[in-house]
Amino acid sequence: MGNLYIGLLHYPMRNRKGEIVATATTSIDIHDIARSARTYGVARYFVVTPVPSQRDISWRIRGFWTEGERALEESRRGEAMEYVTVADDLEETLAWIENAEGTPPLLVATSARHSGKDAIGYEELRRRLRTDGRPVYILFGTGWGMADELIEACDAILPPIMPDSEFNHLSVRAAAAIVLDRVAGDRARPDGAET
Amino acid sequence: MGNLYIGLLHYPMRNRKGEIVATATTSIDIHDIARSARTYGVARYFVVTPVPSQRDISWRIRGFWTEGERALEESRRGEAMEYVTVADDLEETLAWIENAEGTPPLLVATSARHSGKDAIGYEELRRRLRTDGRPVYILFGTGWGMADELIEACDAILPPIMPDSEFNHLSVRAAAAIVLDRVAGDRARPDGAET
Repeated sequence: MGNLYIGLLHYPMRNRKGEIVATATTSIDIHDIARSARTYGVARYFVVTPVPSQRDISWRIRGFWTEGERALEESRRGEAMEYVTVADDLEETLAWIENAEGTPPLLVATSARHSGKDAIGYEELRRRLRTDGRPVYILFGTGWGMADELIEACDAILPPIMPDSEFNHLSVRAAAAIVLDRVAGDRARPDGAET
Repeated sequence: MGNLYIGLLHYPMRNRKGEIVATATTSIDIHDIARSARTYGVARYFVVTPVPSQRDISWRIRGFWTEGERALEESRRGEAMEYVTVADDLEETLAWIENAEGTPPLLVATSARHSGKDAIGYEELRRRLRTDGRPVYILFGTGWGMADELIEACDAILPPIMPDSEFNHLSVRAAAAIVLDRVAGDRARPDGAET
């Protein structure tokens, strides 16, 4: 059984005009995705941005819950925030994982749009996680999605979550929750939560 | 095939001490869940609060995207917000649905904790939606969860999302996304998005 890692990337992203930008980190992305990650047993959730002031803010948000006045609060939110690590770039997080695991992870992109890249199915990724010792690292984009060069640098890409929907604009918080449920949920079939 | 409705309730909820309170509406709950609802073909997303000033704010947030300066923005967020209706209480939303459908919906609660109430499985609810014409109305709580009397008033309850996880504190935004994917996703199995 391999360990699962996730990363929320803020560069290089597209803005609404398709230009490559660094997007802003948000408190709600850190909190919501940390809680989902902890629920689904994710080994580490990386918040990745090249902007030093945004890294500082992200660390401060984490510390508020893990060491600050809310560390003992009943919601146990600090337990989720402890699994958050803030990093400068993708390479730093890959080195972190390889150092922890002794092997580089399978690097998997996500996108709301179809790409020309080979897709790995949700069920296949789920099976790999359960039967293969190699860690898996899933990347989520922000803004209007990951730059093509970033997707190309990955080993594989997951298909869009709802390709046939007439509206396909999930928040990254919702998308991350759904992807985690599909690949790391405790069910074999959609009704598995009741078995 | 029945229509699916969802409601985000702010009263009667438990606070961290177990007391019954009205929780605050938040902009992010309205936005994120509206986007998830639209992606999964939900017929109407009700934001329900007894507090008049919070209803005013919720309508204003909706209007900003559906009629205001951002109505034409490329993210098409207004298309999701059009499916949001703000209401005073559960009864008002039930009357809304019965008026639209000609029949009362199957009213389904959700909870992060096991309840004594009869659970309806995700797969069973999914099957009902596809084969039965009766509308389904799923309720989500805020704060520290729905008051017991509210859960008791429902026809059924869905099981906790990850009952065996050592951490079970998903945000309501993540929980709503996962529940919608399980009961209204376009897949027959977890890998269905690729078929």
